[in-house]
Amino acid sequence: MTARMLVNGLSGDTVSALDRGLSYGDGLFETIRFVGDSAPLWSRHMQRLDESCRRLQLPAPAALQLLREARAVAHDMPQSVVRMTLTRGIGARGYASPVSPQVTRVVAAFEAPAMDGDMYFQGIRLRVCTTRLAEQPLLAGMKHLNRLEQVLARAEWNDPAIAEGVLCDARGRVISATMANLFAVVDGRLMTPAVDRCGVAGVARAEVLAVCPEAEIGELTLEALLGASEVFLSSSVRGILPVCSLNGRDYVRGDMTRHLQRHWHDLGFSMEQGG
Amino acid sequence: MTARMLVNGLSGDTVSALDRGLSYGDGLFETIRFVGDSAPLWSRHMQRLDESCRRLQLPAPAALQLLREARAVAHDMPQSVVRMTLTRGIGARGYASPVSPQVTRVVAAFEAPAMDGDMYFQGIRLRVCTTRLAEQPLLAGMKHLNRLEQVLARAEWNDPAIAEGVLCDARGRVISATMANLFAVVDGRLMTPAVDRCGVAGVARAEVLAVCPEAEIGELTLEALLGASEVFLSSSVRGILPVCSLNGRDYVRGDMTRHLQRHWHDLGFSMEQGG
Repeated sequence: MTARMLVNGLSGDTVSALDRGLSYGDGLFETIRFVGDSAPLWSRHMQRLDESCRRLQLPAPAALQLLREARAVAHDMPQSVVRMTLTRGIGARGYASPVSPQVTRVVAAFEAPAMDGDMYFQGIRLRVCTTRLAEQPLLAGMKHLNRLEQVLARAEWNDPAIAEGVLCDARGRVISATMANLFAVVDGRLMTPAVDRCGVAGVARAEVLAVCPEAEIGELTLEALLGASEVFLSSSVRGILPVCSLNGRDYVRGDMTRHLQRHWHDLGFSMEQGG
Repeated sequence: MTARMLVNGLSGDTVSALDRGLSYGDGLFETIRFVGDSAPLWSRHMQRLDESCRRLQLPAPAALQLLREARAVAHDMPQSVVRMTLTRGIGARGYASPVSPQVTRVVAAFEAPAMDGDMYFQGIRLRVCTTRLAEQPLLAGMKHLNRLEQVLARAEWNDPAIAEGVLCDARGRVISATMANLFAVVDGRLMTPAVDRCGVAGVARAEVLAVCPEAEIGELTLEALLGASEVFLSSSVRGILPVCSLNGRDYVRGDMTRHLQRHWHDLGFSMEQGG
């Protein structure tokens, strides 16, 4: 894998083996889609990062510094994904936080994933994962570094025809995909699961909710999902992805999905094939 | 913090900033108490590590190699704690595991924590944490790298007179301390909470259960804990720690605690002040 990287603002590709990010997953990350020098959802990423830093009591770096570093690593890639990882830095053994933690900051740029343009028209195939998300309101919504549930869920299949997996909570309620949020049009109404007990409050999800203020945030059963007229995923990296199949049920790309794809296109993302 | 370290068998103190241990907490650790070259609970640590590697589908390094590396870093420290961290290595962006993961192996030795010998006689003070452990049977029992719950719980207090915090699950059942397992003598019977839905199956806990096969593993309410005649913590690093106070309730070090402290002493640990 090739990536250009800055660690604490300096060229480098390593962190201390005593970093609390490694020891305990004590930190946060953002994965931000850049088109050249521009990240259309930048301010939403910074808003979530700030809010999560506050919740974890991590000192948040200045957004301007992060933007400068992101542009430096993404420089001259026409389409890139910048991953920013913040940790509570190096600490003594034990869970207690250092009195004045020196946050570790990794900013790395990757080539944007190659997405078959057809996927944005035809849609992607999903499966339902057997891995269930645990309810932890203290961590819900954040893009923190404790991601073993997602790793286990993603390890459930390796059929390349299946692009994503649906994650439910322990009570069987649909929450999200493994690396994207999920929306469905149920009885004519756009809805997305709440992420206050588990799941990640995606930046693309926030954009969709801003564009569609009538959307409902609530409980979504698997039954309701299978009965939906449209289903799509939202991802800051991949945009608006129509779902064409889930557990033998077929869906077609509907008006709401098309509308949001156009919006994504208008934001400045080219790949999402708006229209 | 000074530590001697081997990373993948070589002198070094860094890991790749793209390591999945950092990106997702995708890995495991063990903290092993050494007395000189000897780790009395070694085989229990290796047993848990093997079992957890199997559960996470991580290739387990050979125990003999780990022992050689642990002795190399702990060399000439009379009392040390060796932390071994295993991760799924460097991976592409995304949760999907590399087809043939190259496990990252960090073996680091620290001076054993200075423990006031009095603590083993007088006991330590505990508080009840408000942070609740989420139920996740797929991860329960393992000492994996997703430890944000413990970080949040430990951040709840900084009174140095409080040595540990009691963690309950979402339903209010007592599970453990933040970095030790918990035992109580309730109605004359030794018991410890089950750790099949959350919590860590401690190596010291396994030793206690082997020594006391009559001990009961089950549900422990806070009420039962406050009504217990003895309470102690078990830790592979700190041994058997009597609890003298919890939420205003006082306990005295009882026969069971003394018995297990003697056993710890007989195992070859000197600090636990057996007798």
